[in-house]
Amino acid sequence: MTDKLIIFDTTLRDGEQSPGASMTKDEKVRIARQLERLRVDVIEAGFAASSDGDFAAINAIAQVIKDSTVCSLARANEKDIGRAADALKGANSKRIHTFIATSPLHMEKKLRMTPDQVFEQAKAAVRFARNHTNDIEFSPEDGYRSEVDFLCRVLEAVIKEGATTINVPDTVGYAVPELYGNFIKTLRERIPNSDKAIWSVHCHNDLGMGVANSLAGVKIGGARQIECTINGLGERAGNTSLEEVVMAIKTRKDYFDLSVGIDTTQIVPASKMVSQITGFVVQPNKAVVGANAFAHASGIHQDGVLKARDTYEIMRAEDVGWAANKIVLGKLSGRNAFKQRLQELGIELESEAEMNDAFSRFKTLADQKAEIFDEDITAIVGNNAEEASDHYRFISMSQRSETGERPFAKVIFKSGGEEFTSEAEGNGPVDATLNAIESKVKSGAEQLLYSVNAITTGTESQGEVTVRLAKGGRIVNGVGTDPDIVAASAKAYLAALNKLYDPAQQKLNAQMAV
Amino acid sequence: MTDKLIIFDTTLRDGEQSPGASMTKDEKVRIARQLERLRVDVIEAGFAASSDGDFAAINAIAQVIKDSTVCSLARANEKDIGRAADALKGANSKRIHTFIATSPLHMEKKLRMTPDQVFEQAKAAVRFARNHTNDIEFSPEDGYRSEVDFLCRVLEAVIKEGATTINVPDTVGYAVPELYGNFIKTLRERIPNSDKAIWSVHCHNDLGMGVANSLAGVKIGGARQIECTINGLGERAGNTSLEEVVMAIKTRKDYFDLSVGIDTTQIVPASKMVSQITGFVVQPNKAVVGANAFAHASGIHQDGVLKARDTYEIMRAEDVGWAANKIVLGKLSGRNAFKQRLQELGIELESEAEMNDAFSRFKTLADQKAEIFDEDITAIVGNNAEEASDHYRFISMSQRSETGERPFAKVIFKSGGEEFTSEAEGNGPVDATLNAIESKVKSGAEQLLYSVNAITTGTESQGEVTVRLAKGGRIVNGVGTDPDIVAASAKAYLAALNKLYDPAQQKLNAQMAV
Repeated sequence: MTDKLIIFDTTLRDGEQSPGASMTKDEKVRIARQLERLRVDVIEAGFAASSDGDFAAINAIAQVIKDSTVCSLARANEKDIGRAADALKGANSKRIHTFIATSPLHMEKKLRMTPDQVFEQAKAAVRFARNHTNDIEFSPEDGYRSEVDFLCRVLEAVIKEGATTINVPDTVGYAVPELYGNFIKTLRERIPNSDKAIWSVHCHNDLGMGVANSLAGVKIGGARQIECTINGLGERAGNTSLEEVVMAIKTRKDYFDLSVGIDTTQIVPASKMVSQITGFVVQPNKAVVGANAFAHASGIHQDGVLKARDTYEIMRAEDVGWAANKIVLGKLSGRNAFKQRLQELGIELESEAEMNDAFSRFKTLADQKAEIFDEDITAIVGNNAEEASDHYRFISMSQRSETGERPFAKVIFKSGGEEFTSEAEGNGPVDATLNAIESKVKSGAEQLLYSVNAITTGTESQGEVTVRLAKGGRIVNGVGTDPDIVAASAKAYLAALNKLYDPAQQKLNAQMAV
Repeated sequence: MTDKLIIFDTTLRDGEQSPGASMTKDEKVRIARQLERLRVDVIEAGFAASSDGDFAAINAIAQVIKDSTVCSLARANEKDIGRAADALKGANSKRIHTFIATSPLHMEKKLRMTPDQVFEQAKAAVRFARNHTNDIEFSPEDGYRSEVDFLCRVLEAVIKEGATTINVPDTVGYAVPELYGNFIKTLRERIPNSDKAIWSVHCHNDLGMGVANSLAGVKIGGARQIECTINGLGERAGNTSLEEVVMAIKTRKDYFDLSVGIDTTQIVPASKMVSQITGFVVQPNKAVVGANAFAHASGIHQDGVLKARDTYEIMRAEDVGWAANKIVLGKLSGRNAFKQRLQELGIELESEAEMNDAFSRFKTLADQKAEIFDEDITAIVGNNAEEASDHYRFISMSQRSETGERPFAKVIFKSGGEEFTSEAEGNGPVDATLNAIESKVKSGAEQLLYSVNAITTGTESQGEVTVRLAKGGRIVNGVGTDPDIVAASAKAYLAALNKLYDPAQQKLNAQMAV
């Protein structure tokens, strides 16, 4: 019988740990809903003890997700585990994922604990977690660089205490497939009660081998869970890409002989949503979800492909959710058509007021632009979804530039209910616009990144701008959309300022990276 | 003794085959010089028979590159091989790389040839190539999906004819490491004269395993050449990334026990140059060369990293060429300082006139912007490097937008020596600008992509815009830079139009993909 491979998505936890990828609660809930449509088995929704914002996001996700197991990370102590359990209350199916570092380097330099102390704490943590759920995952952080004897001792003990999943992280992305696969195999062979747990792999991509390492852990090591993220989001070079491991398992079923529950047609929509929310672009030559990944998705029909599709294609673009970018709505579309399309896109608005708001933005856009694409609709809804609670709000602006003259911008915006008008010059119109806002707000934030992506093809479409700001050790992304790229920049800057302003986004700067 | 691993870079050939990545001759020469600084062993400079433009680029590269072997691709026929040999004339060290498909699917559907015909043509091609050089590489296209018996027969014969390198492409990115490594091993064991050739791997990344497959071909299969590209550029999901295989070999020397000749400190400069020239962005979570690949390169100092660097880092950012973005020049810098910095950056301008031009652009920029970074200098030089021969040239523009009004732009530009002034409206100021140009030029080109990347941090810096246009089956990228993002867009659009206009860029739409 073909074994099932469990897909554990950690976009909302390990992915969010990327500098600049922090998300609001509502953004996380939107992604969680998409992960459920994608049919991932486990959604790691966050790290409850790390911040009130994370706690609230996990709790919100636990209430709305029905089909996937919802999981929270927790360090191996009672306080963290208690917070995780509280956040997960109400979940249909829940998991607590507790971890502690087991490599000599991490134990000595980071934890400043002896191996015996780590051993006892790991056991105690799993025992404590048993009070809250029977679905307990344990990770020895930096497991791949740990001493095998010690690791066997720890893992045997936590399985005895009731850990049901054992995850072996290659925390620093140091592994190569053959060695990592054999490492898992050795652990499973040497630990007497290893058959009482499901084994899991968690690989980072620092040497470009996250996917191959994970699959070797499965093929050689016998692991039956892969931890991964959409677009390979994650710290440094990121985590294993969900889309790549899933499509490798499917395309090479002859070799892996495993089944996965993923609805692959939801992969591209998930990729676009994560990219849009975090502002992390997907490079065109990214496997599966890059714009060029399928020749014909980028408008190319090579002769070879036309003669026989299999000549150059081992997967079908439709199977991973690349669809013709359909014109779905226009100027004459009514409220019902708009509402129905939102439902088809899996977007749920919380109140009639929000729906009215979104529909009026839709009508404004339809006046500017004849053809409204799905991506425009997602942008409309995503753009100002949290407007009501925002401290800073865009009202209007004007700008001009001329060769040889200093570019100028005037921005009108609200700050905490009060309306401000501000003017400034800059090196370009975008610079002038941001200067105008900053001259009133005086955030003092450092601008780390400015990027623009046209949402749909061409410049007649909406522009999507990401601004990344840093202040006091925190890094936030603001995303803004508008057919006018300069106005989109103003909105993005205000969105980033809102995130810096929001106290719920304050994060415990935890020293952890499973 | 530690074997040497040959690094064969095909950024300029297989990389350039990506839809939208086409480069001009001068751009290719700039990249080739950087590849030489990187100390790659072999530079595949193009496919001489595919177009006059490719021929000219290979020939120009053959004249300037001294340390690396310069290579041209050629189909397995006398005409192609003759063109390759002609293009390579004058090279210090040259290689001809000939190929023919050997998989049942490709032979039947694409070549419409019998296996015996393919066998004879492969032999004849290598024999003919011997008239021109002793350094001959042979690739069986779609080799990994070929029948082993037939492949052994072909490869034994071409080695007998004098092929010195045998490359086994996984053309469609279907392989997994274990199987691909064993495939190479089997071929080498079964072919009696296999020790007379160096074996090479060429993997695509469709399932995210290009790097791991290449390394398995080396470790298990005994290959001693890896074919790869900067940033993993290439069709669909791209080729194996040079930066990833090189850093894996270096970081895991304990496992691979191989030496490579690469100067790793030139990796990041090479990555930035290729990304800038092609307009293909590198995602932040890309291994080695992504902006987030090293925590502290993105301004983050995690507690763990500060306590002990090895806790989370297996490579050092400096080793791959991530340096502090130094302020090198400013308003008061003179011509000599500018010239010296160009030399340090490896940029050689062809004439005093070009130098004067570049220096005057530098002074203009220094008036707008206090701090001039290396990236600005590269942009200044790259931006209008081919101005003299351009059909369309930007002169000046003005634009304005205001909430509730229709954005407006006026552009003045030259077309074939004549000056045009054109005005238009659009959905945004960029759209208006491009409409203004298009309304005069009437190219009818379809706009496939519009993207913006700030060259240095923040919006006070120059903006770099890429516009991708398609017309009549051809896809071109135009790149423009300016502190004003709207002006940069106009320049990018004109640059793309120049590429569409340039007859030398016409490419044989060859049915080939090694």
